[in-house]
Amino acid sequence: MVGFFCLSRGETMTNELDGLLSQRTASMRRNRIREILNVVSRPGMISLAGGIPAPESFPIEELYRINETVLDRFGARALQYDLTEGFTPFREALAGFLKKKGIKCSAEQLLVFNGSQSVLDTLGKILITPGDIIALESPSYLGAISAFSAYQPNYISIETDDGGIVPEALDRALEEHPVKFVYLAPTFQNPTGRSLSVERRRQIAEIIRKRNSLVVEDDPYSDLRFRGEALPALYTFAPENTVYVSTVSKIFAPGLRLGFSLAPPLIHEWLYTAKQGADLHSNTYAQALATEYIAGGYIDRQLPKIIELYRPRQEAMLAAMDEHLPADYHWTKPEGGMFIWVEGPDGVDAEDLYWKAVERSVAFVPGKYFYIDPSHGLPTMRLNFTRADEATLKSAISTLGSVINGLGAD
Amino acid sequence: MVGFFCLSRGETMTNELDGLLSQRTASMRRNRIREILNVVSRPGMISLAGGIPAPESFPIEELYRINETVLDRFGARALQYDLTEGFTPFREALAGFLKKKGIKCSAEQLLVFNGSQSVLDTLGKILITPGDIIALESPSYLGAISAFSAYQPNYISIETDDGGIVPEALDRALEEHPVKFVYLAPTFQNPTGRSLSVERRRQIAEIIRKRNSLVVEDDPYSDLRFRGEALPALYTFAPENTVYVSTVSKIFAPGLRLGFSLAPPLIHEWLYTAKQGADLHSNTYAQALATEYIAGGYIDRQLPKIIELYRPRQEAMLAAMDEHLPADYHWTKPEGGMFIWVEGPDGVDAEDLYWKAVERSVAFVPGKYFYIDPSHGLPTMRLNFTRADEATLKSAISTLGSVINGLGAD
Repeated sequence: MVGFFCLSRGETMTNELDGLLSQRTASMRRNRIREILNVVSRPGMISLAGGIPAPESFPIEELYRINETVLDRFGARALQYDLTEGFTPFREALAGFLKKKGIKCSAEQLLVFNGSQSVLDTLGKILITPGDIIALESPSYLGAISAFSAYQPNYISIETDDGGIVPEALDRALEEHPVKFVYLAPTFQNPTGRSLSVERRRQIAEIIRKRNSLVVEDDPYSDLRFRGEALPALYTFAPENTVYVSTVSKIFAPGLRLGFSLAPPLIHEWLYTAKQGADLHSNTYAQALATEYIAGGYIDRQLPKIIELYRPRQEAMLAAMDEHLPADYHWTKPEGGMFIWVEGPDGVDAEDLYWKAVERSVAFVPGKYFYIDPSHGLPTMRLNFTRADEATLKSAISTLGSVINGLGAD
Repeated sequence: MVGFFCLSRGETMTNELDGLLSQRTASMRRNRIREILNVVSRPGMISLAGGIPAPESFPIEELYRINETVLDRFGARALQYDLTEGFTPFREALAGFLKKKGIKCSAEQLLVFNGSQSVLDTLGKILITPGDIIALESPSYLGAISAFSAYQPNYISIETDDGGIVPEALDRALEEHPVKFVYLAPTFQNPTGRSLSVERRRQIAEIIRKRNSLVVEDDPYSDLRFRGEALPALYTFAPENTVYVSTVSKIFAPGLRLGFSLAPPLIHEWLYTAKQGADLHSNTYAQALATEYIAGGYIDRQLPKIIELYRPRQEAMLAAMDEHLPADYHWTKPEGGMFIWVEGPDGVDAEDLYWKAVERSVAFVPGKYFYIDPSHGLPTMRLNFTRADEATLKSAISTLGSVINGLGAD
């Protein structure tokens, strides 16, 4: 069971080289979700804990051909040092892809990073002076907190409800605190799966503009829509005050580590400068693969396949939850994404449930880990539905139901 | 000609979002070498300015097969999220490769990053509190200075001679200043091409151990040896006080952005934690390609080809320098690597020569840019010999000779 909790600093600080460490290491924390995955890799475990695409969603067969096309078309260029901004054909392909989603931009406005995690890290680097305040929706994506924390900010949590962040609460927070930026995932948020309505997007954009604030819009999941109508990016309502961040991880392959930013000019320029010092540029070959995947039309065939893989999984999980979870448990029913958020009644500690469920080979993430204040969210859980098939998900939810109901056996 | 000098901060700081920037942006600087490459891409320019492998050194034909093997062997695993530490088969292959070079380590001691630039950046992140002192050989690799500067250190320069850093000068500096770490490239250094002798390595290791200091050993070029005997890594003399940093950029392809660290346990652990927050992990697919390149034996066939490509280029350049440069110019004659360092007589400003040479379509890097104090190194130049064939290099040196001699035409 080692590896589940954040390794405490005390354990790591016992070496005579200690004087070497920077002050900022004191604020770094390990991503506990990734730590939990160590436990989850136990044989036979059904994991609802990850946030990981199904391996069968990857276009493996197509990649034989995509690789050949990349080598034929780009040759040595795909293997050479390249621009810090990103491989130009990839940024052009991305700009075209974003246009179809209603986001108008030129290739020059995009910067390519090693996954959207690296955009978040670099934003922290250029924006956060120690002690600066960042506003987060509560609960929030843990990876963003890991990225920002290295730069020693303070956080304030903004109230959310079933519709996501509450605009009035955001307005009040910006009134009361000198907030450096607001970090939001408006569509199929991790961990809750919630989406902001068009009306809330408008209100939030207006608040951000009115207060001349900056919002970081993290958008990894919006293409994984199973039902309902596409929602316009927050960016489209306030492009001068929004850093739009996205990735090809959920629509192509996360192992390629390709994320990107679309930012106001000043932020864009400093992201560029910081990235140049941090890693020169992102993997040219991976960008060339993604260029061909998008520009070669593969994405238009693959994305519907990915959605048709995940939609029945989510439906199966939601149906099993109706059947097996008690009446005083509530959960989100997102129109897409990768997660369902469960809230039990007061008094439940989902970490207790976690350990009991793990004993019976079902894992999930206790929701409290997504809160800045670890005393919050005790009865909550994040369930992922992308990694297992329908029958397995049904069985896992049945087990979870029996654990919740305190039964000893299935 | 725009883009040659570091963009001054004044030009970038004119936006109402300025209050958003972190204090550390004030210490970030653009890599002027990369900026110079904008000028150098002019049609017809012969560039001795870059530090870039020849495209014909890449195993393009082999990559068709390597890609197939990777997809056959690893399938979805090569496209999935992976360990922060790096793809295990790649770290195993690297450990085997390092063993042949006399560096004994296990796969678990290695961490994979997005190029060695990203190791340097992450070392800065975990080690440097603003104001900390870093010791650099003078001149030094500009990319390292760019990486470290984001974390607001102060620098001290250690005296060098034709044999590289002077051990007594290093010892004195460590005596007089609380140095956080020493950054060195002991073999075929960028920009000078110099290598430390075995004897100096021993002396430096002893000084570092005696003072319980830390040295960062940057080793991107040692495999590009054209003549003479291989030199043992500084790491082998002081493994507990050395962070060994290297890359596959010069022995496979820089576009894959794969560097790695071999560090003492405490540093290793914090590099891991910082990397997890910064980008989760490095490109899995690129690591799988590099695994097959090394473990499949491709590297054993390709590396001799790369050396046989560069050796005659360097010989041609050295011969042309003997012929065309005045007697009061001196230069290094490295046994490998990618650079020759030229020092003119006092009174020469190599930047004047640069502009005159560029007018005649030959570019190089004025050496002063590799010094912390820009008033140093005025008569020096860095010449790269890997990007052009022998005839072109001879012609470029002939032009450079005539520019130096103040002649108006070839």
